[in-house]
Amino acid sequence: MTALKACKILITGANRGLGLEIVKQLSEDSCQKHIFATCRDPDGSKSEALRELAKKHPNVITIIRLDADDPCSVKESAKKVGSLVGKNGLNLLVNNAAIVANGTVQTSSVEDMKNTFNTNVIGPLLIIREYLPYLQIAAKASGTPGMSCNKAAFINISTIAGSMTRIPSIYNQFPTLPYAVSKAGFNMLTVLAAEEIKADEILCMALHPGWVKTELGGDDATLEPKESVEGMLRVIGSLTEKQHGRFLDYTGETVPW
Amino acid sequence: MTALKACKILITGANRGLGLEIVKQLSEDSCQKHIFATCRDPDGSKSEALRELAKKHPNVITIIRLDADDPCSVKESAKKVGSLVGKNGLNLLVNNAAIVANGTVQTSSVEDMKNTFNTNVIGPLLIIREYLPYLQIAAKASGTPGMSCNKAAFINISTIAGSMTRIPSIYNQFPTLPYAVSKAGFNMLTVLAAEEIKADEILCMALHPGWVKTELGGDDATLEPKESVEGMLRVIGSLTEKQHGRFLDYTGETVPW
Ligand SMILES: NC(=O)c1ccc[n+]([C@@H]2O[C@H](COP(=O)([O-])OP(=O)(O)OC[C@H]3O[C@@H](n4cnc5c(N)ncnc54)[C@H](OP(=O)(O)O)[C@@H]3O)[C@@H](O)[C@H]2O)c1
Ligand SMILES: NC(=O)c1ccc[n+]([C@@H]2O[C@H](COP(=O)([O-])OP(=O)(O)OC[C@H]3O[C@@H](n4cnc5c(N)ncnc54)[C@H](OP(=O)(O)O)[C@@H]3O)[C@@H](O)[C@H]2O)c1
Repeated sequence: MTALKACKILITGANRGLGLEIVKQLSEDSCQKHIFATCRDPDGSKSEALRELAKKHPNVITIIRLDADDPCSVKESAKKVGSLVGKNGLNLLVNNAAIVANGTVQTSSVEDMKNTFNTNVIGPLLIIREYLPYLQIAAKASGTPGMSCNKAAFINISTIAGSMTRIPSIYNQFPTLPYAVSKAGFNMLTVLAAEEIKADEILCMALHPGWVKTELGGDDATLEPKESVEGMLRVIGSLTEKQHGRFLDYTGETVPW
Repeated sequence: MTALKACKILITGANRGLGLEIVKQLSEDSCQKHIFATCRDPDGSKSEALRELAKKHPNVITIIRLDADDPCSVKESAKKVGSLVGKNGLNLLVNNAAIVANGTVQTSSVEDMKNTFNTNVIGPLLIIREYLPYLQIAAKASGTPGMSCNKAAFINISTIAGSMTRIPSIYNQFPTLPYAVSKAGFNMLTVLAAEEIKADEILCMALHPGWVKTELGGDDATLEPKESVEGMLRVIGSLTEKQHGRFLDYTGETVPW
């Protein structure tokens, strides 16, 4: 189903929505791999489906606590994962966790502005920083030139709501100013991280999953998580240095900034 | 020197750098106007040059306290300006105040991420919100169709560092991740505000001043404030609805997002 052969993979926000579906599809394909499924409350009721899935694939899935809002938790999770990945490092990290907040110029609260920025931008910044050493190990260990998600990559799950070019046509339907502003900042983070790690041959890009039926996407969304994740994994499996620092959607189409 | 004929103009961060130069050039041209020069500490030593300038043009310049970091101060300033502009409202508001912070993925502090976002994004959001009623009055009072800065406009002083397309080529020289991320968010705010206020025929766009010798730009910058502001005022004077929601530089060239 997917061309992705990366050995060691970490996903944030893996307990529900797209994150959980990514873990599910990866754990069901035939390639041998290990998945670090992270979430902020591994023992809570919102993580039950992930715990069930991990029970079905005990040698493939390890659940790790990672709260993007808590720098200590990010650090601790990286230390733990670092001790588990061993000498070949971590190949792929999917920055998927995010929160949404609705609002317009008139109604967006300062609190929503701060919270979305915290979870959707500062969280991923700290995650990239703390996990980078393990992706550097993977890049060095791979022995192959160029970039790919089988070697070492950060995939940042973004949205067309963070695209200056695309948002005007959907803003009436989705007045999510705090979310859109944070995702534009997240796209900038993606571009800058790509710039900084290109010498290490670690791929970094932004990926839009489409409009998907999850808690965040809502019931009116056009895609099931299954279809979106199948598309994203196909794109992820096909990436090379040509897509480094770029913004694509789940069908492989370029999204303008 | 400038084609700008707007009557009532407000500038944030008007006590030094580009903000002060904008006030200076506007107060020296021959068109009759009133300038609300706002700054966070009107009585402080950093506002001495502005106080001197205001003394030279007592009927043209009113200094008003506005701290972009403080929602109460934004609200109070709007109330005060609202009571002063009268029945023709406020024609032009220049969101110029901003702070810079240096850093990379490795070194950017959480504090710098939060502070730049606060001053450079949340501040302007609240400013646009609180002053909008007075720009709506100006737009209605103008009696002319279409958009222009003489009628009603928000001009957001942005930077190519906030452009996903342009930043990679300058990031090595200017590793300012917190600033770049905040300005990308500010650009998104510009696009969304433009979308929301287009029915009111209030113009809103982002403007890059070039690289200018100010405290923020540093001594190596290529432009003097005089040249940058002459260019920006020329662009501002020429804007129509065609540039609504767009991103230009001080020469009138489009900056890609
Ligand atoms: N669904 C769509 O239509 C759509 C469209 C465009 C982009 N996206 C993007 O796709 C990604 C996944 O979205 P989704 O639709 O799957 O959303 P979702 O169903 O709401 O799931 C969000 C996930 O993020 C986690 N999360 C939130 N805050 C966190 C934190 N501080 N630390 C760790 N985890 C946290 C949640 O965990 P808890 O259970 O603990 O809250 C949950 O696992 C997001 O980046 C979103 O912006 C989605
Ligand atoms: N100079 C350049 O090369 C360059 C290039 C691209 C874009 N820009 C943009 O141009 C604009 C002006 O920059 P500049 O070069 O003139 O910078 P500057 O010389 O450092 O001046 C910044 C101004 O913003 C004010 N300010 C900062 N925080 C504030 C707050 N919380 N509330 C109110 N005012 C605040 C400062 O006031 P205090 O005196 O109280 O600190 C000062 O008046 C900024 O938006 C900047 O991003 C500049």
